[in-house]
Amino acid sequence: MAGHDGKIIMFIGDGMGGRDVPSLGGKTCLEAANTPSLDALASGGASAMMYLANPGQPIGSDTAHMALLGYDPHRYYRGRGPFEAMGVGLDMQPGDVAFRCNFSTLDDNGIIIDRRAGRPQTGTEELAAAVVDAFKDGIDGVQVFFRASVEHRAALVLRGEGLSYHLTDVDPHSAGVKPSLCEPSPDCPPDEIAAAERTAAVVNAFVEGAAKVLDASPVNAQRAAEGLPKANAALPRGAGEAVDIPPFSTMHGGLRGGMIVEVDLVRGLGDYAKMDVIRVPAATGRRDTDEIAIAAAVVENLPKYDILLCNIKAPDLGGHDRDPEQKIQAIEKVDRAVGHLLDNLDWENTVIMVGADHCTPIVTGDHTGDAVPVVFYGSGVRRDLVHTYGERAAAAGGIGQISGADAMTLLRNFVCRIDKFGA
Amino acid sequence: MAGHDGKIIMFIGDGMGGRDVPSLGGKTCLEAANTPSLDALASGGASAMMYLANPGQPIGSDTAHMALLGYDPHRYYRGRGPFEAMGVGLDMQPGDVAFRCNFSTLDDNGIIIDRRAGRPQTGTEELAAAVVDAFKDGIDGVQVFFRASVEHRAALVLRGEGLSYHLTDVDPHSAGVKPSLCEPSPDCPPDEIAAAERTAAVVNAFVEGAAKVLDASPVNAQRAAEGLPKANAALPRGAGEAVDIPPFSTMHGGLRGGMIVEVDLVRGLGDYAKMDVIRVPAATGRRDTDEIAIAAAVVENLPKYDILLCNIKAPDLGGHDRDPEQKIQAIEKVDRAVGHLLDNLDWENTVIMVGADHCTPIVTGDHTGDAVPVVFYGSGVRRDLVHTYGERAAAAGGIGQISGADAMTLLRNFVCRIDKFGA
Repeated sequence: MAGHDGKIIMFIGDGMGGRDVPSLGGKTCLEAANTPSLDALASGGASAMMYLANPGQPIGSDTAHMALLGYDPHRYYRGRGPFEAMGVGLDMQPGDVAFRCNFSTLDDNGIIIDRRAGRPQTGTEELAAAVVDAFKDGIDGVQVFFRASVEHRAALVLRGEGLSYHLTDVDPHSAGVKPSLCEPSPDCPPDEIAAAERTAAVVNAFVEGAAKVLDASPVNAQRAAEGLPKANAALPRGAGEAVDIPPFSTMHGGLRGGMIVEVDLVRGLGDYAKMDVIRVPAATGRRDTDEIAIAAAVVENLPKYDILLCNIKAPDLGGHDRDPEQKIQAIEKVDRAVGHLLDNLDWENTVIMVGADHCTPIVTGDHTGDAVPVVFYGSGVRRDLVHTYGERAAAAGGIGQISGADAMTLLRNFVCRIDKFGA
Repeated sequence: MAGHDGKIIMFIGDGMGGRDVPSLGGKTCLEAANTPSLDALASGGASAMMYLANPGQPIGSDTAHMALLGYDPHRYYRGRGPFEAMGVGLDMQPGDVAFRCNFSTLDDNGIIIDRRAGRPQTGTEELAAAVVDAFKDGIDGVQVFFRASVEHRAALVLRGEGLSYHLTDVDPHSAGVKPSLCEPSPDCPPDEIAAAERTAAVVNAFVEGAAKVLDASPVNAQRAAEGLPKANAALPRGAGEAVDIPPFSTMHGGLRGGMIVEVDLVRGLGDYAKMDVIRVPAATGRRDTDEIAIAAAVVENLPKYDILLCNIKAPDLGGHDRDPEQKIQAIEKVDRAVGHLLDNLDWENTVIMVGADHCTPIVTGDHTGDAVPVVFYGSGVRRDLVHTYGERAAAAGGIGQISGADAMTLLRNFVCRIDKFGA
């Protein structure tokens, strides 16, 4: 067994769980994929079914990763915006209100025809610079910060007195309609309505002004010339306020935590949790990501940390795109990354959990609250009778049914790095 | 898959779970029954073990159905009386105290010889009318409302100033003894003792007066002539006060809920929850109930609702009567009802959960806190490896172990009618 210096890896295939896919003969993508390394973990380790929150509750990547890292999202979550903002490198100060934004495509009548503007691969930094310049004097006394991230993703931070994050989304979450007007959300406390109305007015002014600047940008003229959808709108959603959470090491007995992840939202959470956020240039967050570079970065960095969280985004993209082949290929990327870890780490002194933060089934194209399969392998894990990694197989797992909040406790337990309760 | 308009059915075989029955070779009644439709659900769907509350805690039909509908009974439950009263059509106002009552049989010495008075099939409305008439001027300034329901069941409502529901049961829950005197219950708050003592005195006066009126009724002369046990007492239990719960649609994102159930208690809960309580005349709540009429009513009404709760009472009766053959026949009624649904609904756009609200084992004759088997089938359900419906088979289910409070979350998840927590 490990001494008290065993290493922990939490390896998340984003949205990797799923539901039965008719075109795969009723298999899930995980079951249809060729996953020799994940199956080796299942064979030599122990499986579990995990509901990230309560059974059936669909959950986001942000709240899921909070749970996985030991932060009860019901207690700490204040909207996704702050994580997005921190994740793209925007500073957050107390009182700031932050938003995730999508670059989207509007037609001449202002109707959204592509919520993700064709997932632009280039040009969004230039577009963001134009937006920043347009609002350099703020809006109605409120400072505006805006930055682009991977593909269609961006973040917005508003800074000023008397703002509220209890706001509805501008992004209507579906194409074919106009962007929604921002307004106070139904759960806005009565004494914050005035602040929420003021903040909503700033958001609406931002959306209108940004659309003008973006539509006029040379980047979009070029996109149009190439037959690509214009990125001529920036649609905020997921308003949130700066959160205050204890450092990860405080939560977990002094363990030094790092993360190598592809999701800005999770990087932002890592910043908040004072974990080291390790950047791997070849980790693109897209389906072309270099999974071996990611795994190699885990191998390289593990000596410096007690635990590394790793997340590969690609399976979630396949789910959202409702493309089983794409999702299967992404899962096989996760499998190859895990294979690299299997080949290159000391498993007498390391434990890994491979799982997902939620299901993104092909048949729904969005997150669902179904259980995700999880496998624990390595130091301290009592092998069970499961031999493959997948949704159905995990139901017989020796770890049983767990919640996202149990993951860190189990991992620390396997390497004996958690205090006894009682005597 | 479902759009965002998938229909939900929650189908409860009351008390359908059980324990090993020696005379059935150690099988449970569910395992011994012929249930091709329930097995088809298990084969094509996913099973779970469900504890309605915490594992092992025996639970009533009222608290179980509260949990199933999403109302935490630890938070909202204030005794069964109000649900019984609402369920038989008695009005409840704030401050009222309500009771479930049994028509029972007392011998000449006042000893209870049948707590259910031989389950009378007729005459209880006339008996109730005599009781109402006897107390038309109230008792000590307290108004008395009383109404009969199916078989031996009735409800009592007391209305007046300064009443308390912290009272012990008059019904001693077993034959061979006299009815108990009502008194303040051990959990009565100190500052309510005086009110509870006053209310108990009213209850005791009611029991004494009702027994005289009932014994003198021509209905009981006729029953005696036919060799049937007299219904010559009305024994209150389950005191409770009017409860205040949010409407079902508010609890569940605007879903329109209806119920087709055979238990007054659950109908009363439905009234409180502002669900539509749909009456099916052929649903008798007895072992002779017309299960196909019930299923047909589900098929007919489902287009008008987002969710229908259905309950067939008969399995519970067989359990309470400790009669395995009767319980098996009742379970086969549930199976036929489910078969009718299987044949007549669009399962691309409908999800069903079939389960029980508690176990009523033959060997105990009363509710126990053992897990009940549950199966989910239809739109969005990831098929598992279980092929039959029963207590032992469900332990391998792909949904895992759930609480009653998880049922609505899971059902809404399968048809994608629940908001994501986080982003």
